Amino acid sequence: MKAEILTIGDELLRGEITDSNKSFLSQRLLTLDIETRWHVTCADDRDDMTETFRRAAARSDVVLVSGGLGPTRDDLTMEVLAATFGRKLVLHQPSLDALRAFFARFGREMAAINEKQAWFPDGAEVLDNPIGTAPGAMLEVQRGEGKGSAFFFCMPGVPRELYKMMDEQVLPRIASRLRVTSWARATLLRTFGLGESNLDELLRDIGLPEGVELGFRTQFPDNHVRPVARAASEAEAQAKLERSCALIRERLGLLVYAEGEETLEAVTGRILIEHGATLAVAESCTGGMIGELLTAVPGSSAYFKGGVVAYWNDAKAALLDVPESVLAEHGAVSEPTARAMAEGARARFGTTLAVATTGIAGPTGGSADKPVGLVYVALATQAGSDVRELRLAFDRERNRRLTAQIAIDWVRRHLLGAPLDLPRLGRMEAKK
Amino acid sequence: MKAEILTIGDELLRGEITDSNKSFLSQRLLTLDIETRWHVTCADDRDDMTETFRRAAARSDVVLVSGGLGPTRDDLTMEVLAATFGRKLVLHQPSLDALRAFFARFGREMAAINEKQAWFPDGAEVLDNPIGTAPGAMLEVQRGEGKGSAFFFCMPGVPRELYKMMDEQVLPRIASRLRVTSWARATLLRTFGLGESNLDELLRDIGLPEGVELGFRTQFPDNHVRPVARAASEAEAQAKLERSCALIRERLGLLVYAEGEETLEAVTGRILIEHGATLAVAESCTGGMIGELLTAVPGSSAYFKGGVVAYWNDAKAALLDVPESVLAEHGAVSEPTARAMAEGARARFGTTLAVATTGIAGPTGGSADKPVGLVYVALATQAGSDVRELRLAFDRERNRRLTAQIAIDWVRRHLLGAPLDLPRLGRMEAKK
Repeated sequence: MKAEILTIGDELLRGEITDSNKSFLSQRLLTLDIETRWHVTCADDRDDMTETFRRAAARSDVVLVSGGLGPTRDDLTMEVLAATFGRKLVLHQPSLDALRAFFARFGREMAAINEKQAWFPDGAEVLDNPIGTAPGAMLEVQRGEGKGSAFFFCMPGVPRELYKMMDEQVLPRIASRLRVTSWARATLLRTFGLGESNLDELLRDIGLPEGVELGFRTQFPDNHVRPVARAASEAEAQAKLERSCALIRERLGLLVYAEGEETLEAVTGRILIEHGATLAVAESCTGGMIGELLTAVPGSSAYFKGGVVAYWNDAKAALLDVPESVLAEHGAVSEPTARAMAEGARARFGTTLAVATTGIAGPTGGSADKPVGLVYVALATQAGSDVRELRLAFDRERNRRLTAQIAIDWVRRHLLGAPLDLPRLGRMEAKK
Repeated sequence: MKAEILTIGDELLRGEITDSNKSFLSQRLLTLDIETRWHVTCADDRDDMTETFRRAAARSDVVLVSGGLGPTRDDLTMEVLAATFGRKLVLHQPSLDALRAFFARFGREMAAINEKQAWFPDGAEVLDNPIGTAPGAMLEVQRGEGKGSAFFFCMPGVPRELYKMMDEQVLPRIASRLRVTSWARATLLRTFGLGESNLDELLRDIGLPEGVELGFRTQFPDNHVRPVARAASEAEAQAKLERSCALIRERLGLLVYAEGEETLEAVTGRILIEHGATLAVAESCTGGMIGELLTAVPGSSAYFKGGVVAYWNDAKAALLDVPESVLAEHGAVSEPTARAMAEGARARFGTTLAVATTGIAGPTGGSADKPVGLVYVALATQAGSDVRELRLAFDRERNRRLTAQIAIDWVRRHLLGAPLDLPRLGRMEAKK
């Protein structure tokens, strides 16, 4: 089975937007073991779109189209699709009602121009878009005597709408309409702490079931392991996948912090709730990033009490009770300061745990004694506090991001009773 | 003149890599006022590549090909290009010498397989690759009697090699061989405060020079204006662009905060330094995001003293001196609390200015009285403090991001002596 992905839009062709929808769609097709053979982008232009649709119908079985479903004159997907394959456009009343309801929810009246989004090629099956105004459509197109048909799936270009429609509306239809005979199931095991080559080596001999392949994906500062299991049935693929995940988890232990899309801060939040624990942060070099990450999780107010961003020394003293003598003797970027910051935050906020960061993120601000990349991370608990020194050699943004991740990971590790291991990634060294 | 960009590679079609080469190449073509009409990606497969090359030659004048120049069996670009247009592959001795020298520089002997990279279609002009092993090639292909020719430019897929070859080898050849008669210059004026349609309306009658077009680009919570100026010479295009920017800035005033890639937090930092002012933050619903944004700017310690993330009420009282009576009477999400937070942060940190946020970012935590999306932003200055109430109807992430942007924008506006305007975007209302 051959798939083709079409994206429509002048802004893509001008390079104003990097087209990430294509890689998402290709990845999702692989879950049904369908290989994408073509990616084509064309302009919001009738002739070019007609040529593109025709060619795709001739050579591909599944054609995913993204974009061109908006209400403006530039949005031609449905109109050209209908014309290309000799269909009329017909009004889909439920979509019109849904559009009106969508606008009403925001207290606005629907503009006349939006009505266009309720018209579809005759014979198309409409695909719901519960989070946007543009519904999608599936259209089966006959290729001619004995040549079977091509299935077009039109989706919005807005990524979050596209993602939802692909998973909830399109993939199930492809699986049922196109008699898929080989199934693939994949998942993402999220790990933090080892680089890709170390992970690869560690997993080389775990004896995965036949038909399972491992991929790796770097998403700084994490590295994710992606097992893909293929089998003749969905259930068998799923069983192989689960067996593989168990083997990988057995080998990697706590390096795996989650499966799928869950973030480290979300997992850590869940564990904090399970332990009835609360958390505060004291941030210097991360400047608020840890708080931002933690509070990006809905419901984080259940365990996150707050933090102090102590960028200047007087704030470290005044708001975190770091003794002036410690700052004077050891400096802001030092083990004693990090420790005092964590302990100060824990006391001030009255939390079970507190983490602190202080360091020189770069690109400037370093000295021979305290170079760029020198960072201290501290965790304060009821039983005392732990501090480690790191030497990071990434850029400012990644030095900060990695530091934040270590701090959050320490909270998770501490609550799970594990040692406060530091990651082993390229361009970093950990001391003590 | 029509351009087409072809990228070759199974890894692109599997979605393992987001294909950013295409947007780079399209943008660079626009500097010669050449519009890209097609982006096509196909597999490392002889038949698919042949079909792709043929079609591109038939419909496009300039065809940029990226990838497939490596030494392995999968790398088929030169071989298929030659076969498609009836050329032989011939050895290019200088490239072979350069390849051997390249390996010698790293103290390695060239493997026999690499020799392949010195063979090109007969008649091709070889394009130097001083930073990699794969040279590129230009090939002119006749389309047939009276139909002119198509120019193929093959470049490596490795981005930094591609970028260099495009700028140093390909663009000058396109300009000279294809008698480019029109030049284009573009820039990005970054605005915060109005939606795209409002901007469009506001700029409709500013009387741009002939040959200048305006585009718009949304990058939440900002909306950017992109003037593109075309003229018969590079200098004239540049002059028109500058004139256009002046007109746009005259109309939009402080809505334009920067040109190019500079962020609002970087601009605001520069203005803080110019005014010798310092800043502190008190964050509730933004949870550290404002601090994180501000400190992402290298050198921000010159003006950012720190902040308090006061997620729980007791932290608002203990660390920001919000009176218990205010919290009890008005609640954490209220105008008096926001004001007290900003004033408390300004006093505690001893800064010129302080901003505060408190609100209900969602998706839960709202009530009839205080619904999700209710947010207060406050700015404390020497002259007193300002607070506004907002009603936001985005998701949690965007409610927080927009709130943070307003807080930072207020600092900029205050220092520039402008009123603390609130943005007018869809899905938000501002009161007071």
